[in-house]
Amino acid sequence: MSTDKETIQRLIRASMGEVKSDLVVTGGRLINVYSGEVLDGMEMAVSAGRVCYVGPSAEHTRGEETRIIDARDRWVAPGFIDAHTHIGHFCRPFELLQAYVPHGATALMASCDEHTVAFGLTGMRLFLDEVASHPVRVYTLISMAAPQDPLLCRTESLSDQEVAEILRDPRVLGLGEVVSWLRLTQGDPDLLARIDMTREQGKIVHGHTAGARDRRLNAIAAASVSSCHEPINGEDALARLRLGYWTMLREGSFRQDLEATLKPLLGAGVDAGRLILVTDGMAPDDVSAHGHMDHVIRRAVECGLSPVRAIQAATLHPATYSGLDQDIGGLAPGRLADFVLLDDLETVRVGATFIGGELVAEDGESRVAAVPPSFPDGMGLKTAFRLPVTADDMRIRCEAPRARVRVMDLVNQTITRERVVEVACAGGVISADVDSDLLKVAVFDRQEGFSPVFGFIRGLGTDIGAVGTTVNLDEYTLLVAGSSDYDMAYCANLLLEAGGGAALVDKGRILQEIPFPIGGLFSLEPWRDVGRELAAVQQTLRERGAAFAKPLYALCFLTFVTLPELRITGRGLVRAKEREIVPLLAR
Amino acid sequence: MSTDKETIQRLIRASMGEVKSDLVVTGGRLINVYSGEVLDGMEMAVSAGRVCYVGPSAEHTRGEETRIIDARDRWVAPGFIDAHTHIGHFCRPFELLQAYVPHGATALMASCDEHTVAFGLTGMRLFLDEVASHPVRVYTLISMAAPQDPLLCRTESLSDQEVAEILRDPRVLGLGEVVSWLRLTQGDPDLLARIDMTREQGKIVHGHTAGARDRRLNAIAAASVSSCHEPINGEDALARLRLGYWTMLREGSFRQDLEATLKPLLGAGVDAGRLILVTDGMAPDDVSAHGHMDHVIRRAVECGLSPVRAIQAATLHPATYSGLDQDIGGLAPGRLADFVLLDDLETVRVGATFIGGELVAEDGESRVAAVPPSFPDGMGLKTAFRLPVTADDMRIRCEAPRARVRVMDLVNQTITRERVVEVACAGGVISADVDSDLLKVAVFDRQEGFSPVFGFIRGLGTDIGAVGTTVNLDEYTLLVAGSSDYDMAYCANLLLEAGGGAALVDKGRILQEIPFPIGGLFSLEPWRDVGRELAAVQQTLRERGAAFAKPLYALCFLTFVTLPELRITGRGLVRAKEREIVPLLAR
Repeated sequence: MSTDKETIQRLIRASMGEVKSDLVVTGGRLINVYSGEVLDGMEMAVSAGRVCYVGPSAEHTRGEETRIIDARDRWVAPGFIDAHTHIGHFCRPFELLQAYVPHGATALMASCDEHTVAFGLTGMRLFLDEVASHPVRVYTLISMAAPQDPLLCRTESLSDQEVAEILRDPRVLGLGEVVSWLRLTQGDPDLLARIDMTREQGKIVHGHTAGARDRRLNAIAAASVSSCHEPINGEDALARLRLGYWTMLREGSFRQDLEATLKPLLGAGVDAGRLILVTDGMAPDDVSAHGHMDHVIRRAVECGLSPVRAIQAATLHPATYSGLDQDIGGLAPGRLADFVLLDDLETVRVGATFIGGELVAEDGESRVAAVPPSFPDGMGLKTAFRLPVTADDMRIRCEAPRARVRVMDLVNQTITRERVVEVACAGGVISADVDSDLLKVAVFDRQEGFSPVFGFIRGLGTDIGAVGTTVNLDEYTLLVAGSSDYDMAYCANLLLEAGGGAALVDKGRILQEIPFPIGGLFSLEPWRDVGRELAAVQQTLRERGAAFAKPLYALCFLTFVTLPELRITGRGLVRAKEREIVPLLAR
Repeated sequence: MSTDKETIQRLIRASMGEVKSDLVVTGGRLINVYSGEVLDGMEMAVSAGRVCYVGPSAEHTRGEETRIIDARDRWVAPGFIDAHTHIGHFCRPFELLQAYVPHGATALMASCDEHTVAFGLTGMRLFLDEVASHPVRVYTLISMAAPQDPLLCRTESLSDQEVAEILRDPRVLGLGEVVSWLRLTQGDPDLLARIDMTREQGKIVHGHTAGARDRRLNAIAAASVSSCHEPINGEDALARLRLGYWTMLREGSFRQDLEATLKPLLGAGVDAGRLILVTDGMAPDDVSAHGHMDHVIRRAVECGLSPVRAIQAATLHPATYSGLDQDIGGLAPGRLADFVLLDDLETVRVGATFIGGELVAEDGESRVAAVPPSFPDGMGLKTAFRLPVTADDMRIRCEAPRARVRVMDLVNQTITRERVVEVACAGGVISADVDSDLLKVAVFDRQEGFSPVFGFIRGLGTDIGAVGTTVNLDEYTLLVAGSSDYDMAYCANLLLEAGGGAALVDKGRILQEIPFPIGGLFSLEPWRDVGRELAAVQQTLRERGAAFAKPLYALCFLTFVTLPELRITGRGLVRAKEREIVPLLAR
């Protein structure tokens, strides 16, 4: 976002008091992220949506029309930036922005992977238009790869021409993470061509280097990847920081890594100047429970970072990394007037959020009026499967009396081990076995495949007929798990008819259903309702025996082809480390 | 400098050990500017001129052809960056780079103001070509304005088309300082148009905000100026840092501000993450005496900054500010292999300098072979004046018996006060008066003006017939001061015949002469010779009574139209603050 000549002219005149400012904030304690100070007795004036003056007295900028905000007993800080996140599932992007803005978010860097996977180039365009309808500034990272790994995944794809075209959009900040980073260390020419295009335009490349070490971590940096949000311990974080990565410490819905990463870094006394706080995605139920970037900053303070340092890591540092520090990330002349009023600094209590000098949230509520979605009707998830799905479609045939099946054995909410389990084949089929905590999983291919891909999971601990979700990273296709072929078919039909969603079915009865009618990605309902429903799904799964805090997420990540060890996609069972498809039946 | 696809591919393979590296540095203590650590036991490998590996063992990258540098007992640091400097006077740019490189300089951000003032667009192009002939990476800032202030100055000028054209050159980093910053706060449309062009191309605008405070300092930041190297005390520095300026602390030939700026900042405990060390120009005699960026870093350490922090302020910080941190400023994979070996950290003793993995300087000597200048013959300074200049041309006529003249009264080496002094007009002319320390100054217009502009200075304290220089900021025309009309004319003829230079003449005898045949800007001789000659000029002036350490600089700055109070240019006597021309004779 470049400032035009007229705006600059106006700002200069406003700084000098020759034209009057639109807004003056007075009486607060200013968080100066440039100098790292908390300053009393500073006034800030705003003109044309940007800061035009910061200093001891903005009296000269005050006119009759100038609004005055008395920030006495409050702190004035730059608006918070979530420098790596995803706003493409569960809720409409607009609604997630509505959820975040009362918690101080004024900008975020979001990938549009979900939209791309579901709709290709059209999806990226729809995303750009959707987020432009909300005042929170969204800087979009386009997908480096769709599918993430063409060997293993089945999604919409992108041509080089499409990537080149969308990269030229000024709303696009750069290239999003490729989770299959082995493709980078193996020098995949398609990815390198896209990185090349991106760098030629002076744009950046976000990384995802989970588990990479030493020479591989070096190779990914050499490939121009300039950040990573995947450290899960101090060693990871330090290795990335030392290799020049802008090191993103994550505390979000899917993972909470801050304590394990930040504390050791602080213990080692490293320079915090290239640390960035991110959520990597915050689901609506978690926003209700914890907040958004305010929560991340608060957690960082609890881990020992000073409040000002923590705020820098959520404002100035991400702005600088993104090449946006003339626009956002601090309160200085020329910058967009995006700021928060904090009722308390230590606990990062956000009282009000302003974007471009306009109040956009107050006392926990967005003041932004709802707008219709940018998504047209009829965008539901479609698979190649003909409806209705029958129980028979859910059967895994096996003529032998017994079989050895590969099982995704959950060791925690996201990681699986590959186990081979011997099972009986009663009536010529292999069934789930609740007593052995063995549930069947069916993944429906969106493009071809007239039979689902089947797998088994162990460790979910849930006694339920069927649980289905069309949110599953980064496949976003229909995945149903369960113990009953009838319930699984019912659940599948339910979700396919709704165009996508999450649902629990047991003994022919719908326990819960959340429709995600846009590509199976998200609901169009208000974020709080979606959050409540998601929380209810998780609770039901827990009540039915699931050992994890967020059991649904175990299913959402079953398709994630870079997490250890055995995963499932529309292409088959995937051995992540080996980048290979393996059959369900072991020898 | 964008890395091409083939280089990235090669770097990845080199990181992985699939192709062997060109160079491995082993055994040294690595200065990690990202984490702020000094690390033992790290090896660094280089391929295709860039770092491909940093870590505990580069064994896998070693092949038969790999050169090994044993850095035992030494420190390995990123090459030093002088983020705001001038290499357009006294010496040929190439020679100044030769001077700096043994002191650890591997990159610098230099304006080409001098070349622009003398030769317009042609000068900028010649500068770009000249600096490209040396391995030190020069990122050029083009002139925002030529003349700096058209009301007050007389130099070559630039059209908007020329600025637009040269801005597109990839070697151009952005727009250089406009010393007449009042033009910015007054919203000069020409300057704003150029800033607009610059920002549209994603380039940066260096500032010069000497003496600006509060609302004016705000207005300049609002105009998109993103740095300033002009703080001369802690208050200045803090004000700039707080307003979002990348705050450059200067220690160079013309000014030494580090002690006055850095110490108070450290005392205030501010965040050093946006501090940058610069020279703003280092003359060859000072390089011989003190060094270059090694000297600045050393001085910063003496002022209390830790060595690693000081090195960050001369490496990573300027690279980040300049949007170049994927290329320079740190030793991480993908970055250019520009580094120094330090024999001692505390005293910043540079043993060797490498650029792109190649040794370019060792033990205080450049290893870069001389190349012919990019400047064609016949580029000497020309004025509109017909040769020879006669003593008669030097006379200031006055019919009255006495006159009241405006005098530039030097209060220190650069600042003047305006005084009105009553003088006798013997024989119908106003003469210099050595007894009253009153010297005459004549400035020759390069474009028209068949008579020089005259003025008087007091406070130089020198008893000399004539001292002349064609290096005078930012006019770069012929300026001669002295007590004797004959010597002044002789000196003028000498310098005009040489195409420019600096010279001392007394009683018809040449005491010293340094020819600057390229536009009157610089010598083509080796930098050490020029430095020796400059030092001799300064010494002679001191021996003849001058009170200042570098008396010649007092004359070099007489033309600088934004320093208080009274200055002189080809247009006349200038009241800096009022931006007005005043007559020599007061009422």
